[in-house]
Amino acid sequence: MSERTRNEAGIAATIERLIERFGERVSTSASMREQHGHTLTWIANQAPDAVVFAKSEAEVQEIVRIAAANDCPLVPFGAGTSLEGHLNAPYGGISVDVSAMDAIVAVHPDDLDVVVQPGIRRKALNEQLRDTGLFFPIDPGADATLGGMAATRASGTNAVRYGTMKDNVLALRAVTATGEVVTTSRRAKKSSTGYDLTRLFVGSEGTLGIITELTIRLSGIPEAISGGICPFPSVQAAADAVILTIQSGIPVARIELLDEVQVRACNLYSKLDLPETPLLLVEFHGTEAWVAEQSTRFGEIAEDLGGGPFTWTTKPEERSKLWAARHDAYWAGLALRPGCQTFSSDVCVPISRLAECIAETKADIEATGLVAPIVGHVGDGNFHTLPLFDPADADEVARVKAFVGRLVERTLAMEGTASGEHGVGQGKMKYLEAEHGAAALDMMATIKRALDPKGILNPGKIVAIR
Amino acid sequence: MSERTRNEAGIAATIERLIERFGERVSTSASMREQHGHTLTWIANQAPDAVVFAKSEAEVQEIVRIAAANDCPLVPFGAGTSLEGHLNAPYGGISVDVSAMDAIVAVHPDDLDVVVQPGIRRKALNEQLRDTGLFFPIDPGADATLGGMAATRASGTNAVRYGTMKDNVLALRAVTATGEVVTTSRRAKKSSTGYDLTRLFVGSEGTLGIITELTIRLSGIPEAISGGICPFPSVQAAADAVILTIQSGIPVARIELLDEVQVRACNLYSKLDLPETPLLLVEFHGTEAWVAEQSTRFGEIAEDLGGGPFTWTTKPEERSKLWAARHDAYWAGLALRPGCQTFSSDVCVPISRLAECIAETKADIEATGLVAPIVGHVGDGNFHTLPLFDPADADEVARVKAFVGRLVERTLAMEGTASGEHGVGQGKMKYLEAEHGAAALDMMATIKRALDPKGILNPGKIVAIR
Repeated sequence: MSERTRNEAGIAATIERLIERFGERVSTSASMREQHGHTLTWIANQAPDAVVFAKSEAEVQEIVRIAAANDCPLVPFGAGTSLEGHLNAPYGGISVDVSAMDAIVAVHPDDLDVVVQPGIRRKALNEQLRDTGLFFPIDPGADATLGGMAATRASGTNAVRYGTMKDNVLALRAVTATGEVVTTSRRAKKSSTGYDLTRLFVGSEGTLGIITELTIRLSGIPEAISGGICPFPSVQAAADAVILTIQSGIPVARIELLDEVQVRACNLYSKLDLPETPLLLVEFHGTEAWVAEQSTRFGEIAEDLGGGPFTWTTKPEERSKLWAARHDAYWAGLALRPGCQTFSSDVCVPISRLAECIAETKADIEATGLVAPIVGHVGDGNFHTLPLFDPADADEVARVKAFVGRLVERTLAMEGTASGEHGVGQGKMKYLEAEHGAAALDMMATIKRALDPKGILNPGKIVAIR
Repeated sequence: MSERTRNEAGIAATIERLIERFGERVSTSASMREQHGHTLTWIANQAPDAVVFAKSEAEVQEIVRIAAANDCPLVPFGAGTSLEGHLNAPYGGISVDVSAMDAIVAVHPDDLDVVVQPGIRRKALNEQLRDTGLFFPIDPGADATLGGMAATRASGTNAVRYGTMKDNVLALRAVTATGEVVTTSRRAKKSSTGYDLTRLFVGSEGTLGIITELTIRLSGIPEAISGGICPFPSVQAAADAVILTIQSGIPVARIELLDEVQVRACNLYSKLDLPETPLLLVEFHGTEAWVAEQSTRFGEIAEDLGGGPFTWTTKPEERSKLWAARHDAYWAGLALRPGCQTFSSDVCVPISRLAECIAETKADIEATGLVAPIVGHVGDGNFHTLPLFDPADADEVARVKAFVGRLVERTLAMEGTASGEHGVGQGKMKYLEAEHGAAALDMMATIKRALDPKGILNPGKIVAIR
């Protein structure tokens, strides 16, 4: 990783100054510290030395200036739903909890955007927006904060139509390593003036600055939504249907793959009666007439490829029933082996390689003797494997780790990426050079060093400095 | 600007070495040099000291290494369609002409992407793609190179539906200031691994590296296109129609505003008979049924706002006729005052401020005594004013410059940007601090210094170093 070590004196001095300034809003209790290093994955907890709860951008500036003066690491914290150890403090330091900064600053319905503080969560945002007829479309599953979603370049089921956080953050404000506030862009829909600092911050995982405000694009709540479910004889046939659908310009809103293992798990867990073959769950957004036309066309494409029937509806309750398998997929998977944990990989390949990548991965799962359902955002070429393992069984854990390593190697060999949406954190740093090459990694490290020369902003994530 | 001066010895040594290596592919003729500093605008020509024609990425690397060793500026050159002095060489140096690097490297129809060299022009690309059923949707007007379009973050009439270059460059390769080749991303549709170097290069105007390859997103050629023309009683009514259309989730492909001055110019120039009121020209892409539904809905929205009738068709020849006014807008505008030049500004505001911004701008045009048609990509809040001036009339030129300055100030006061699509170049450097703030400009300069410490890559553009 790096040769940096803990700066005990600097951390202690920072905590002392923070307590003087923020009093009871600084916690050094073991449980609070551990909860803020929480990783939701198999990466060991590396708790920060203290947690400070910030209420405003000005307070974040003060915190950064105190930490900078004492060379003390800072780890921004939102909801704690990160999956790759982003929140760990490998060199100690302070967790900066911005969850109380959860206000909507301004809604601009005519411009289809909203200005929010970083601690607001996506479900709360959508509840507060409901009366405007607009919604924030990105749905990564977890009820994450908008700041965290921007920091990890999150996406999820809707990305095939609405894009990722890269496409939906119009502008942001962040506190830099020196405590300055930087504004990355104006609220205009596009601009050609200067380096794209917005996109530099999106996906930077707290290593370049602490996000304190975001201007987010919204979409109109569709008049009609059709949703349905379609079996296929093989993953290849399902992937071909995805490719043809997208090539035809059908603006599918969600298109999710469940492999037969996942379908079996869902049948058991949710008392469903689905055919245990690969399934696509599909959703279209538009007017009544348009979603009906899209659904019919998708059904035709599916049948041409030996799939179908495509069962679909525009009635919300029935749609929820058809999509139940997807909503409960994670818990259904876990229930296949009670007492086990899982680790969600999130590789992403060009769609033309998707069927091949999944086929090789399934062969590997079988050869390794694992139980590992597959669920995918296949419109993007992105899929999750959920290998189940007993955390007390060291041999099994080792086999799962090796399996994930091979999965990433396979993905990279197919022009794919180690992470479609979870981010790098600590867990995927080891794959970065293979994915990007030495020159790109050097460029990232050069940018990091230039913008955070002391290495106080979430050190030990993405690119290791020092 | 900066205190940098010409490094005569380094430039001379670089030219000598380049001639040794590339022979007749180095030109120092006055006409060739002047043509490569061409600005298509009122900014004075600052020709490079030599032009070198590169045929491959490896040659670009050699050129950069020679220049780096001699501290000699390099200015990348594609088609020369830039509008803000991007191609000028204020400190002298070498124009690196990559127009011969114009090959398609690979087409991936299943993935809807294409890998190209930077010198390919967008019309040639689309001609070569025709048989695939796919197309590259970004249309900035000029037949620019893909490298240049990426470097300036170009967009144009289709951006409201298909996005800008920021959204359509999946990955790129570039030669850095040290002559290394950096690859910014994989070909997967999305990724969360590391800093977004792709978006850092898009819009960097040759100041961070010389682009040598691009992976570009394509779209399916729509089954049906409907296009039409719709008069409105006022710019406000037209802008309101744009807002309602987008809020309704109607995926309009193009929505262009012509103000009544531009319409009069088009009537005169193209022998048309259009009502001399603000007009929207609109285009929808989809299936026959869907474009008909969208066109009908747009017509209803227009009539609710006092506009209409919306005259539309799906027949290509008739569509071209209806859109003739837009296609000839630039030349029609120039013909209003024969012998005059124009300067195209490209400010962009949040759509909610568009009508107000245009109204104030029209009042300013009148008060200043200018003739200045307005044409806008109004779905993005982006509009061009084309003030006509006699370049020999110093007073008029001064009044136009002052007018453009006020236009930018007005735009910035409305949360807009000085450039929606033309870029910064030399022309808009003076507005950057007002637009982005000192902290963001410092961050840009820090990145520039870190990645190009000698300042050899297109110096004197975007952020001034040294």
